[in-house]
Amino acid sequence: MINIAILGFGTVGSGVYEILKKSPDAIAKKAGDVLNIKYILDIRDFDDHPERELFTKDYNDILNDESVKIVVEVMGGLNPAYDFTKSALLAGKTVVTSNKELVATHGTELIEIAKEKSVNYFFEASVGGGIPIIRPLNQCLAANEIQEINGILNGTTNYILTKMFSEGSTFEDALSEAQALGYAERNPSADVDGHDACRKTAILSSLATGKFVDYNNIPTEGIRNISTTDVLFADKIGYVIKLIGAANIDANGKVSALVAPRLVSKENQLSDVNSVFNAILLKGDSLGDVMFYGRGAGKLPTASAVVADVIDGAKHLNVNKWVIWSAADSDIMANPEDATYKYFVRTQDKSLKDALSGKEIGSLGDEVVFTTEEMKEKDFLLVAKDKCSFIRILA
Amino acid sequence: MINIAILGFGTVGSGVYEILKKSPDAIAKKAGDVLNIKYILDIRDFDDHPERELFTKDYNDILNDESVKIVVEVMGGLNPAYDFTKSALLAGKTVVTSNKELVATHGTELIEIAKEKSVNYFFEASVGGGIPIIRPLNQCLAANEIQEINGILNGTTNYILTKMFSEGSTFEDALSEAQALGYAERNPSADVDGHDACRKTAILSSLATGKFVDYNNIPTEGIRNISTTDVLFADKIGYVIKLIGAANIDANGKVSALVAPRLVSKENQLSDVNSVFNAILLKGDSLGDVMFYGRGAGKLPTASAVVADVIDGAKHLNVNKWVIWSAADSDIMANPEDATYKYFVRTQDKSLKDALSGKEIGSLGDEVVFTTEEMKEKDFLLVAKDKCSFIRILA
Repeated sequence: MINIAILGFGTVGSGVYEILKKSPDAIAKKAGDVLNIKYILDIRDFDDHPERELFTKDYNDILNDESVKIVVEVMGGLNPAYDFTKSALLAGKTVVTSNKELVATHGTELIEIAKEKSVNYFFEASVGGGIPIIRPLNQCLAANEIQEINGILNGTTNYILTKMFSEGSTFEDALSEAQALGYAERNPSADVDGHDACRKTAILSSLATGKFVDYNNIPTEGIRNISTTDVLFADKIGYVIKLIGAANIDANGKVSALVAPRLVSKENQLSDVNSVFNAILLKGDSLGDVMFYGRGAGKLPTASAVVADVIDGAKHLNVNKWVIWSAADSDIMANPEDATYKYFVRTQDKSLKDALSGKEIGSLGDEVVFTTEEMKEKDFLLVAKDKCSFIRILA
Repeated sequence: MINIAILGFGTVGSGVYEILKKSPDAIAKKAGDVLNIKYILDIRDFDDHPERELFTKDYNDILNDESVKIVVEVMGGLNPAYDFTKSALLAGKTVVTSNKELVATHGTELIEIAKEKSVNYFFEASVGGGIPIIRPLNQCLAANEIQEINGILNGTTNYILTKMFSEGSTFEDALSEAQALGYAERNPSADVDGHDACRKTAILSSLATGKFVDYNNIPTEGIRNISTTDVLFADKIGYVIKLIGAANIDANGKVSALVAPRLVSKENQLSDVNSVFNAILLKGDSLGDVMFYGRGAGKLPTASAVVADVIDGAKHLNVNKWVIWSAADSDIMANPEDATYKYFVRTQDKSLKDALSGKEIGSLGDEVVFTTEEMKEKDFLLVAKDKCSFIRILA
């Protein structure tokens, strides 16, 4: 029997409880041993819970119990999740998490401690919810150099953009609807301003390169400024608009990463990923394109990814399975202004189209709408900054 | 250093060689040791090859060399691949393969031998080419009961059907073109009659249930009878036609499997999988839908999946990593005639539409075209057998 503690009994935590309780025999068979939930940590009271004796408000109960081998951290946020995780790993316990913020911020240190202690820090659920992506990137793609990642990593923004496209809603209306349905928070900034997608992009970039990519170094733009006019003109030329977390890795291992709304060709598989679904499209040097698609959030999808990690943790109790990434020994970020894009531009400054050798798509009121050929971001900004609204194009 | 032998220096075998030689340091880092190709077995002469000294025609050179720890079987076919694989496993060597025919036929025995000998029999490349699917099914989805699998598993037929849709080609013309491009064999039966997809469906079904599903028990229909008329009417009602390898697993673990052309709704993610691309859409009880997409064949995609298995084999040299499936202790196949489908029907027998309560889509010449509500296959066949041409519908 392997004892487990769950930290945080919110949406994901209660989902983990539910899945572990639903088919314990099937899970024991896969894990090679019975998995027993010994503690659940939460500051709230759960006096009506059928197993209320499992609940504790004191983390030391868990930390000091040597029989607890696996800690499931699904509290979210940096504090106290960071201290709890670090102390658990130092005490020789494997930690499984869905906490993308913690992984993106302190992942390098926590991975290193897990290695030293011959335990594991697993975080499959931190990116793409239930979609298996961390293991495929680590193992199945071991024979590939990953050259490109483009992901729809945030369900809330994808829901909003899908609504804007399929129903002509404004951003504000689509956001209100997402909030009413519980897909968006009352304060939606983490989603709509791209911060959530940015952390996930940092995790994927770190995995692909094997070196820590700091999310603070990834230029990040949200979707607040996307208008129904953008949507209409994009549609007209065969594109949709998606919030894309992108990383391009050049032959020297330099990373050019960007989180921003992009025009995505309807020929691109990502263009069909709608509503709250997520997808990650990778390009490997041998493999070509491969895409992983599924529900990027939600109680049971996310919890099932956490439980899969728990099972893997149970099978590797005293073996560090992999060092997913280590600290970067030098600056691995390319200068964002050296990246090249085609641009979709709307402007009242008619001279800009000629200055950028743009190809006109149409006009609306006193605005002209055009696209450019591929050019360096710095060359584009030199000419166009503050003179237009623009969206970068993904082929 | 870990010595490797490659059996068969055809498309995949030479791709494996190429990948292993391209970035040996990166691969050694991932595998935890240097991987050294010590032998290549092929009946042909490769006197011009820069490493011609590696080639042998005598398998005993490999079998009797205790320093060879991993054997890469990429010969294809049952013989002599079966004898070579079995003897290698019995001699305590891990075997990695892309040979779906062998896995689907003798997988249960070979998996069992690998377990007894504490080595591994890995076959990620046998389904979906370079798409990671075996590991996700085994590991990442460990916390899910897989309820449904629907896959586009054969690139040749998908290329032909895509041509028929996008260009209105006939089956014969699209096949000729596929042959001219090297996507189809001169004798295309294994692809167009569904046998290749059937073996892959059997492997996926076995993985999902943990029990051996014999491909001989999977009803299999090819795409030879799909006409441009079918394509036109399918398109008219919002469907495409795809060759789908399907398995539904009920709550008692009974498998209802079918390989056949299906009408696939344009709302379904699988409908956008075109040309030689493959995709596998899974439904897990906790996870919901998840899809894996990529190149299902080709030298480097397939070879990169083989090399990923070699790397994993190197990391688990004397540890059996998993028993992917075992022999079924009872008949796990549901009666195919108990499966329920909606049907797309073309017939000259006008009375059939009323007999099946069909909904008319249109008519062409003296044929009426209609769809039915969901009904049991046996009820459908009782009324409609030999009186119409029909295609089952996938929602």
